[in-house]
Order: sequence, then structure tokens, then C-alpha cells
Amino acid sequence: MHEFELIKNYFQKLSKKSPSALNLNDDVFFDKKNRLVVSVDTYTEGNHFIDFKKPDLVIKKIIRSSISDLVCKGVKPKYYFISASGNKKSFSKSNLSKISKALNQEQNKYKIFLSGGDTVFSNKLSFTITSIGFANNIIYRNNAKIDDDIYVSGNLGDSYLGLLVLKNKIKLNKLLNKYFTDQYYMPSIQLKLVDQIKKFANTSIDISDGLLTDLEKMINVQKLSYKLFLKDIPISKNLKKVLDLKKLSKINYISKGDDYQVLFTASKNKSGIISRIASNYRIKLTKIGTTQNISRKSSIVDDKNMKINLKKKGFLHKF
Amino acid sequence: MHEFELIKNYFQKLSKKSPSALNLNDDVFFDKKNRLVVSVDTYTEGNHFIDFKKPDLVIKKIIRSSISDLVCKGVKPKYYFISASGNKKSFSKSNLSKISKALNQEQNKYKIFLSGGDTVFSNKLSFTITSIGFANNIIYRNNAKIDDDIYVSGNLGDSYLGLLVLKNKIKLNKLLNKYFTDQYYMPSIQLKLVDQIKKFANTSIDISDGLLTDLEKMINVQKLSYKLFLKDIPISKNLKKVLDLKKLSKINYISKGDDYQVLFTASKNKSGIISRIASNYRIKLTKIGTTQNISRKSSIVDDKNMKINLKKKGFLHKF
Repeated sequence: MHEFELIKNYFQKLSKKSPSALNLNDDVFFDKKNRLVVSVDTYTEGNHFIDFKKPDLVIKKIIRSSISDLVCKGVKPKYYFISASGNKKSFSKSNLSKISKALNQEQNKYKIFLSGGDTVFSNKLSFTITSIGFANNIIYRNNAKIDDDIYVSGNLGDSYLGLLVLKNKIKLNKLLNKYFTDQYYMPSIQLKLVDQIKKFANTSIDISDGLLTDLEKMINVQKLSYKLFLKDIPISKNLKKVLDLKKLSKINYISKGDDYQVLFTASKNKSGIISRIASNYRIKLTKIGTTQNISRKSSIVDDKNMKINLKKKGFLHKF
Repeated sequence: MHEFELIKNYFQKLSKKSPSALNLNDDVFFDKKNRLVVSVDTYTEGNHFIDFKKPDLVIKKIIRSSISDLVCKGVKPKYYFISASGNKKSFSKSNLSKISKALNQEQNKYKIFLSGGDTVFSNKLSFTITSIGFANNIIYRNNAKIDDDIYVSGNLGDSYLGLLVLKNKIKLNKLLNKYFTDQYYMPSIQLKLVDQIKKFANTSIDISDGLLTDLEKMINVQKLSYKLFLKDIPISKNLKKVLDLKKLSKINYISKGDDYQVLFTASKNKSGIISRIASNYRIKLTKIGTTQNISRKSSIVDDKNMKINLKKKGFLHKF
């Protein structure tokens, strides 16, 4: 069962009756009159997080994933609610104490407040996080213009490499192992962008499913395609080191998701303000391509401007 | 694992940092400045609903249970979000179509709007419902006065009898079977009370766990006890008929939960306005007892004013 199909076919017509549900086509709900922005997401073991051996890190990952939905739209998260389903082992005293400590750290880091929730017994571990913020306006999906520049914040691919480490699919030294698994569990949410992004972005999304998948989601109902330059897609020094060392292709590591970086488009005349804001607020913002008329096929090109043949554009489920 | 213990021990200290989380001690979250009221609840198969043979009815039950949290606080629900975890069988085309139709009916009945959510794969079926409303004020828990009258809306016990029918633990005729199972799946939410209850109630709660359990929750942090009169506790004609016919004791049927009626206390001088509103808006509101000084033990008395010995005051899980 595919999340999008299900929502589209059965629930979209219900939400159309709502004055402000964005047709369930955005990741957030926005009620302009009440300034309310809401994101609801469910995270399950073996699907959204690999296992529950490190409950403190898992909880950080899912809280960040949830508030990322708001941050990428230019909305400061304020409240979060946790609905937890699990068994006695998952919520042992020791685990609860770790979870509580981790939540406290996230609350201080992102200035968010636990505001309620529920706990039920289940042998399948899952969490539903509701994040709420307030804003006069948000950046909508599917609002790019033709010939917009496409930007991404931070670096891509580190989280995926962390997952490969956790699954023992790649062997690295201890330091690199820690670096990548930290990126998997604790992606850097670009909270500093919240108050800035509305100054330049036409449309935005956070990268959870993968660069190409989310890019298409961001512009899919518009008559637009994209051209990306592989060499411009930002990766960390550590990822570059691993790719070089293991002779791996960059293209296979930058669209696997879980990055929680912000993908957005902006008109070309915004490049000055984007550079200034990036520099003033020390946020890495990289231009990686452009939107184009749908008559030109979407593509990603290599250093020699050759189109790369992509068999698989990303994926929803990683295990 | 007990919901209250878990929340109390580990999460309450986190929520204390929030300006408006009511210390997770109420069923709803209220942010007065933003007029925001939120309720988050998770419902699992075999626990909060018996099975998924009737997806349309299950969905009605959980939507009503969720908005009931807001209604009992004097808050009109406006938006709801569904996070659904289930497998392909649970969310077959036929089931989705039934769910969609049922949601549409609930939307029309209660003027609420599906505003988002999530769907994930799981072999364990569960739903997390987030309900949101807006209000300048709410009725708080633990705000009763000494010698308040205790009231309840509607009738109690019908839903529990419906559950016994569904579990084949009681045999009735077809008409009664339908009546009680309908009450189990589609409890009457007292939406008409929303705009009225603030005129008279000091404190309120909806009855989900059982009359006595929820009554204690409603006043548990106050130095108050209660005295209830069994004969005054309202039951339907159909339940009376069954109790008489099967020679069953009323006391065993009125505190089993899932009633979603509103329990509240009011100062004695409000009895006039309560009668008038009940009559004008055709809402059944029944005085069933009083709060009293903690020096007197909480009790429920029978027709001869004799205290009834209660071994079990209610329960959280019904299966």
C-alpha cells in the first residue's frame, strides 16, 4: 500500500471540504485565519527507524523529522505531541528515562514543548508525532516558477551512509562510523532558515524520501521539469572521502532520503539575497539546478554535461 | 504498563516547561493565547475497538471518542487528523471506501474537517486521531468546589452492553442487539452542550474509562470526595428492560466506560439554569450526586441509602 495513492483516492475528496487542508497535497496543514500549522506523521520500527536499540537517538530522529516539515515551510515549531505504541520492553524504565532525557535535549535545542499525547500497548513499536506552529503565511508546495534556481540546504547522503553502517553494509573506521550514524539519528534541522526562507523561496519541501522523489513532489502538479548538476549537489567532506576511498558513485548516495535538508526554488534575481543570508546566518545553501519547461525532460547531468540514466529515483521504505 | 503512570513519571516534568500544557493532567492541551485546543489519542484493535469487521463503525467510534474530549471541555471541534497503521487487508479498497463514506457522514454531522494525517504499514491495526478546536477558554479538570452537584449527560451503560453483545456474552433479540451495538459504535456526542456548558460547569470530563474512574480523575488532585446515588444514574429504557429481564444489577453496568457522555460538577445555585438549558436544548442532564469534603469517604449508595461495596471501580482495557 502506497501512502500517496491511499490519500489521493479516498481521503482527498473529504479534505476538499476543509477551508484550509491544502488538499492533503502538502506535508503540513495551514489554517491562515487561526495562523495554525500542523504536521502529523507516524514512524514505525523497521521502516522509519532501523530498530529501538538506541531509544534516545530514535526519539531524536523522529522529533527532528516531524519539526522538519514545519521548518521547511518557514514555520517555527512550538508544540509537539507524542502518541507511542509499544510493549513493556520498549518502554522499560531504562528506555523511558533515556527517551525523557533525549526529549529534554531536543526541547532545549529547538525551543519546542511536549504538550500531550497518548501511550498504548502494542507489540509493534510506533510513534505518531503531531507538531504545531503558528505563522501568518507558509511556503506552499507546487509554487515554483519556470527557470527558477533549485537550492538545497546542508549536505546530502550522510544519513544514508549512517544507515548502511548500522546495517553492516559498509565498514568504516570508528570515527567515520560515529559521524555517519550521528547524521542518521540526528540530522541537522535548519531552524535558522525559518525566519529567512520566506524572503526568497517560491516553493519548498524537506527531503525525507530522497532528493529526486521530493523534488518531483515539490513540482509535480506544475508543468515544470528540472535539470540538476550532479557535481553541484553538496556532500560532506567525510562522504567525499568514503566515496573516493571505496570508489563509489556519488549518484547512488545523494537521493536516498532521511536528509531532512530543505529543498526550495527561487527566482534567479534572488541569488544575491540568498548568498547574503547564507553568509550572515552561516547556513549552507547550494544551487544545484533549475526548473524548466515541461517540454524538456527532467534530467540530472554529470561533469561532462551528460545525462545520467536513473533506474530508481528514490524510495519510500528503506528496509 | 499503565498510561497514567508512564505519563506521570517520565513526561510530566517535560511538559511543565510548556506555557500551556496543563501538565498533561487534562485530556486536552490548551494554548490560551492562540485559542488552540488539541486532543491526541491512539486507538488499537482489540483494545479500544473489538475488531475491524465493521470499519465504517469503528471509524465513527474513534472519531467520536476523539472529539468528545473537546466537546466535554466546551470546545467545538473543527479539524481532525488521522494517522492510520494497518495492513493491506485492513485498508482494502472495500474498507477504504466504507471508511471514507463514514468519515463523510461524521464530517457532516459534527461539522469537522479531515485536515491531514499519515498512513503506514503495520500488522497491528491502530489509529491516532488528533482533534483541534479553537476557544477563548475551556473547562478545566480538578476545578470542582466542595458541595457541588455532580451531573452527567445522556445515559450510561448502553455502550458496554453493546460490547457484551459483540462478544457474545449476552443474548438479546435482534432489535436490542442493534440498539446496543449502535450505542457502542456510535455514542451520541453532546455537541449541543459545547456553547452551554461553560455557563454552569466548574469542572468536566468525558466518560471513556467508566463513570467512577473518570469521576475520580476529574477531582483527584483536589481535597474532595463524592457521594453518588445509584438510583439517579440515568440509563436507557432498553438497558432498564434488559436489567429487569435478566435480573442483572445496575451497579455492574454503569461504570464500564465508552459512554462518551459529559460528567461535570456545578454549584448548587446553577440548578435552575441547568434545567432551563437542558429543556431548551433538549439535552438530558441528570444530577447524580455531590462532591464533599475529603474527610467523608467517597461512596455510591443504593435505594436504601446503603453504601455499595465496590471491588473494581472501572478499567482501562476492556478485552
